[in-house]
Amino acid sequence: MNKYIPLLLMPLLLVSACENNSTKEAEKSNIETEIKRPKYTFSTDEMYQIESVPAYSGEHQAIYQHIDESIDDHIKELQRWLRQPSVSAQNIGVRDMAEMVRSDFETLGFAEANLVETKGHPGVWGYYDAGAEKTLLVYMMYDVQPVNEEDWLSPPFEANLIDHELGKVIMARGATNQKGPQRAFLNALSSIIAVEGKLPVNIMIAAEGEEELGSPNYGQIVDAYEERMKQASGVIFPMSSQNAEGKSSMILGVKGIIYFEIEAKGGEWGGPSVAEIHGSYKGIVDSPTLRLLQAISSMTSKDGNTILIPGFYDDIIPPSDEEQLLINRTVHERDDKTLQASTGVSRWIDDQTGREALVDLLYNPTLNVDGIWSGYTGVGTKTILPHIATAKMDSRLPLGQSPEKMFANIRNHLDKNGYNDIEIRPFSGYPAAQTSVNAELSQKIISVYNKYTQGLSVNPRIAGSAPFYQFTERLKLPMVPMGLGLGRGAHAPNEIFLIHPAENVKAAGLADIEKAYVDLIYSLAH
Amino acid sequence: MNKYIPLLLMPLLLVSACENNSTKEAEKSNIETEIKRPKYTFSTDEMYQIESVPAYSGEHQAIYQHIDESIDDHIKELQRWLRQPSVSAQNIGVRDMAEMVRSDFETLGFAEANLVETKGHPGVWGYYDAGAEKTLLVYMMYDVQPVNEEDWLSPPFEANLIDHELGKVIMARGATNQKGPQRAFLNALSSIIAVEGKLPVNIMIAAEGEEELGSPNYGQIVDAYEERMKQASGVIFPMSSQNAEGKSSMILGVKGIIYFEIEAKGGEWGGPSVAEIHGSYKGIVDSPTLRLLQAISSMTSKDGNTILIPGFYDDIIPPSDEEQLLINRTVHERDDKTLQASTGVSRWIDDQTGREALVDLLYNPTLNVDGIWSGYTGVGTKTILPHIATAKMDSRLPLGQSPEKMFANIRNHLDKNGYNDIEIRPFSGYPAAQTSVNAELSQKIISVYNKYTQGLSVNPRIAGSAPFYQFTERLKLPMVPMGLGLGRGAHAPNEIFLIHPAENVKAAGLADIEKAYVDLIYSLAH
Repeated sequence: MNKYIPLLLMPLLLVSACENNSTKEAEKSNIETEIKRPKYTFSTDEMYQIESVPAYSGEHQAIYQHIDESIDDHIKELQRWLRQPSVSAQNIGVRDMAEMVRSDFETLGFAEANLVETKGHPGVWGYYDAGAEKTLLVYMMYDVQPVNEEDWLSPPFEANLIDHELGKVIMARGATNQKGPQRAFLNALSSIIAVEGKLPVNIMIAAEGEEELGSPNYGQIVDAYEERMKQASGVIFPMSSQNAEGKSSMILGVKGIIYFEIEAKGGEWGGPSVAEIHGSYKGIVDSPTLRLLQAISSMTSKDGNTILIPGFYDDIIPPSDEEQLLINRTVHERDDKTLQASTGVSRWIDDQTGREALVDLLYNPTLNVDGIWSGYTGVGTKTILPHIATAKMDSRLPLGQSPEKMFANIRNHLDKNGYNDIEIRPFSGYPAAQTSVNAELSQKIISVYNKYTQGLSVNPRIAGSAPFYQFTERLKLPMVPMGLGLGRGAHAPNEIFLIHPAENVKAAGLADIEKAYVDLIYSLAH
Repeated sequence: MNKYIPLLLMPLLLVSACENNSTKEAEKSNIETEIKRPKYTFSTDEMYQIESVPAYSGEHQAIYQHIDESIDDHIKELQRWLRQPSVSAQNIGVRDMAEMVRSDFETLGFAEANLVETKGHPGVWGYYDAGAEKTLLVYMMYDVQPVNEEDWLSPPFEANLIDHELGKVIMARGATNQKGPQRAFLNALSSIIAVEGKLPVNIMIAAEGEEELGSPNYGQIVDAYEERMKQASGVIFPMSSQNAEGKSSMILGVKGIIYFEIEAKGGEWGGPSVAEIHGSYKGIVDSPTLRLLQAISSMTSKDGNTILIPGFYDDIIPPSDEEQLLINRTVHERDDKTLQASTGVSRWIDDQTGREALVDLLYNPTLNVDGIWSGYTGVGTKTILPHIATAKMDSRLPLGQSPEKMFANIRNHLDKNGYNDIEIRPFSGYPAAQTSVNAELSQKIISVYNKYTQGLSVNPRIAGSAPFYQFTERLKLPMVPMGLGLGRGAHAPNEIFLIHPAENVKAAGLADIEKAYVDLIYSLAH
């Protein structure tokens, strides 16, 4: 299973305003086959007018004031969560954290607050019954990545307030990924209830403790509440979306993924089947390693960039009219060179830039080798003919493609090329998720962002993956990660979440993050 | 550098008397190219008549008796060598062993006995001046492989005599590889000198302490004595050649080898150049891993068995008339199924058997992947686009091919296919070596074997490699590894060398090994 937080945090594609015509380069890679990587024709060069969505005009001064007055207590709530370790990979503190979340729901006055047992770590379900017409579903994760304590400037589970160039920050594992934003959201609920007596919408929260493991059992949590969840009008995921200049990035979709191991070993077809043998036997013995290399190589064009597996470009839903507007806007604002510099890449494939590159990235599937190993990999010389070779591979799936069908495509391709001995071990697979910018939830979120942010980019989707299909495909709900604020260091040492911005920093501090959640909740009430 | 002892000890190819006509299978793998793996037409089906070489008729009873009477002391000489560790890879006891060898030469009455400094461990040079017409050059190695003591039934440097199903054996690291046979040879010299006062031939010994490292500096030892060595009439390498039935295998040639690392990493051509990046970038970023896979795949046919690098089948010297006779004899005696069972291989490439398989193995170069690694190779899922991919590869070169030219062929192939960014790091390279069965040395060795052994196979060459070109190509001398005796476990725990065979075991014990060396030395005197 993939990790979706790093995907969400992945720098959004920065593309220049000027498009290159690189059709020539794009074509040269495919002279060996009829299969071409699809190109998508745009019917418009117009850009989505983010500014045309009116900023949220509601003012909830009494609640804002309550937040300001309670901010030290609210910080303590974040620290309480952050001081409870919940490392899912190492099973450190996970159930204690689940219980803390459950108990917090109770404290807030949730009518339902209970653990949801799964095959793995438990989920936490909470339902706040406001007797309201509308219901908001909130996705949460309460687990965190492992830490290497000695790499930290401040101990990862002390959650100290630190002076940083960004301002006053809280440093802890989970600070931005994802306890900080999530507890800020609960703080907002707390202040609304404190001032108004109750929330203006019903709230469902379905939290998991295995996001950092790739959400292998989130489906079981949805199983338990599927019909209830379907009554919600939309789903949000509290997150920090801002850069230091105060600009927010909003994401409306993610790709799906299949992840698998592929393995060749000696057997009836040939090759050593028991153990490595002396390398000189290559003269009469087949090599499982070369077999795997040939098999993987047969899946792509010589340049590795066009997938030659039949059916691999089927079923893709091309950029819709609204997505074209969003892409045109994104391309207008961003710069390839900046992103290339940040990733250490000299050029995109086929020397594409601008809209061409962005569309290729977001609307075509990938085929990637995440790792490969066989034989002797130590220092110096060892002359062996290995009996086994293994690779880890993944494919990111654009909207429309089915993981099951893509696995079948790979199997069929191998079989048709005589590689029926090569084993595919699927690790995970789920489809893409997409929410319309015109969905009511999307519009209301833009509206709140337009009140607070110094600019907003609305990305139709990212190239990374997250199992948001649970909400969009299964529950048929709009799903948008949302939140002001600035965090850094997810999955890395010295993870931080901005609490009080320095003067020159335009990202929101904790109080404004909470106020924006207040606004969102009120905007969703009607 | 390769290790040539395991190559020498590699089971000789066992091929059946019945040849398959597998032309159809051989051809199907090459429809994609004009390059075909060469086939070699034989002008004869006659077999070499090993028995027609008369057994050595000399009898040296006084010396034989001296050996029998001294056998306990001779065993102690082996133990003395074996109790001195000389692990070249870990630099354990190496120089002490060199000094022991040098000192033994002196004790035997060698006129010259000195260390030969090299860039690595020292060589040892010895010259016994018999005032004789003929001079025999002896190649020796005094280093051994590392040990893992706990895997041993008897401590690897205690050299205990052990009761074994084969009889009384000596168990120690280096017992058969190569201290046992070598010290047995010196014991033979010692008994000749004790009985006759001096040897009937001059002896040069050029020993190295880096055989287990691939003999990287043996050329420097030859540099120091090249003109002297050229005066020898031939070169032997003391070794144990027998199986339990008493049959000896004789080897007249070895393949050469090139060994290298090949590496693709991100750079000006594309791909991440600094570190791995998020796997979802594959949509617009080239993969160095796929690039390496494509580059290696381009070097072979789809089945991995025909090398498509232009020039890779050039310059091969086909089986000579005498080699055809030897191959016909070998094929007549051996069985593919047995060797397949011992290596865990279901079938040879293209379903070849018999002479076709043997000739393909010995007369064509190979291209083998010894190891490959890139990206994430641990348990579970990690979605990255690696910035670097590396493989270890080797090619075994038949007689006629030049390592430099083969390296150039690979470089040219990569460059012509647009892979000029892919790095080749040569680790070692040397050409094949071949000695004629009709050389005087070969005939005299067969003659001695015919006196002692229960059958003899004379193999024109093996598929493995050894840097014997130093003798055959550089010094233009015939070179044949020679010796009776039975050893097991080279490079493995519980290495043994047979001292007193059990009743049902027909391989020679230490005394007969030494007597055969006595006979060889006398046979070479005239």
